[in-house]
Amino acid sequence: MSERTKAEIDLGPLPELIGYVLRRAQLVVFQDFFSAFAPFDISPAQFSVLTVIERNPGLTQTQVAAALGIKRTNFVGLLNELEKRALAERRQVSGDKRSYALYLTPDGAALMRKLRPVLKAHEARMVAKVGEAGRDQLVALLHDIADAGETREPRNGAGIRGAKASRAPRPGSAET
Amino acid sequence: MSERTKAEIDLGPLPELIGYVLRRAQLVVFQDFFSAFAPFDISPAQFSVLTVIERNPGLTQTQVAAALGIKRTNFVGLLNELEKRALAERRQVSGDKRSYALYLTPDGAALMRKLRPVLKAHEARMVAKVGEAGRDQLVALLHDIADAGETREPRNGAGIRGAKASRAPRPGSAET
Repeated sequence: MSERTKAEIDLGPLPELIGYVLRRAQLVVFQDFFSAFAPFDISPAQFSVLTVIERNPGLTQTQVAAALGIKRTNFVGLLNELEKRALAERRQVSGDKRSYALYLTPDGAALMRKLRPVLKAHEARMVAKVGEAGRDQLVALLHDIADAGETREPRNGAGIRGAKASRAPRPGSAET
Repeated sequence: MSERTKAEIDLGPLPELIGYVLRRAQLVVFQDFFSAFAPFDISPAQFSVLTVIERNPGLTQTQVAAALGIKRTNFVGLLNELEKRALAERRQVSGDKRSYALYLTPDGAALMRKLRPVLKAHEARMVAKVGEAGRDQLVALLHDIADAGETREPRNGAGIRGAKASRAPRPGSAET
């Protein structure tokens, strides 16, 4: 198809719809992430799980899944894969036969150290598209979009710097 | 899990990563879309395909797929479903046995008219989270993120209002 033909296609309201442009942008960013992390065979979801386990060793599966807004069934699959690859492990919580605490293995910890510069370079490429100020604006606006899904507490319009899991959407509500 | 426990979970760099917050926001917006369009059983991808066919009757499958950055295999599945439900139809292009032009059926056109207020209400809920000015900023920044995946022409930093398919990522590059 020629450029000319393509430019003539009318997308109607789509390019102004928040959901449409969000999805287009998300796919572009994930594509860069996939390319950068391909040598390590790590997906964005796997990276986020490893990050939370690395930062919070000993959390339960339920806690990690909830913090990331990942459905329980999806999370179990993710974790099985990470355990099979000996990057993370479940350890039984003493006194609770049905609860498992999550830890990185030494291999998992070593991988996360190796991934740090890869992540930094990926993020730098994304920030280069909008500039530092644009990134700050974008991240703040995206948190406003994601957090407004939260209905348990009133919005306060505060800045997002330093925000942690409390700003994430309600567990399970964001996953479809 | 208690709120207190959740607030103590350290997400590390995730809440500042463009890809992570994009994905969280996108899931929240799509969740609202799914709920709103559930009575019509229309997904965001189906809606975008119907929109492009409605606005540009007679385009080929390749053109519609390319304009939306949808992979050919995924697009064929989408279109089969729309055709099965008698919302859109393929018509053979005269003189080219392998090319099909796409049209809405009368049912498809009627559905799109019914969906207009549903879309408007969905978008109003999203805009309410960031305000009109916030929406304009957000959409412009998201186009900058999505378009920087485009490497065929230099970026010009121009405003996005009125932009059409020429601002979309390279066909196939955004889909994983």
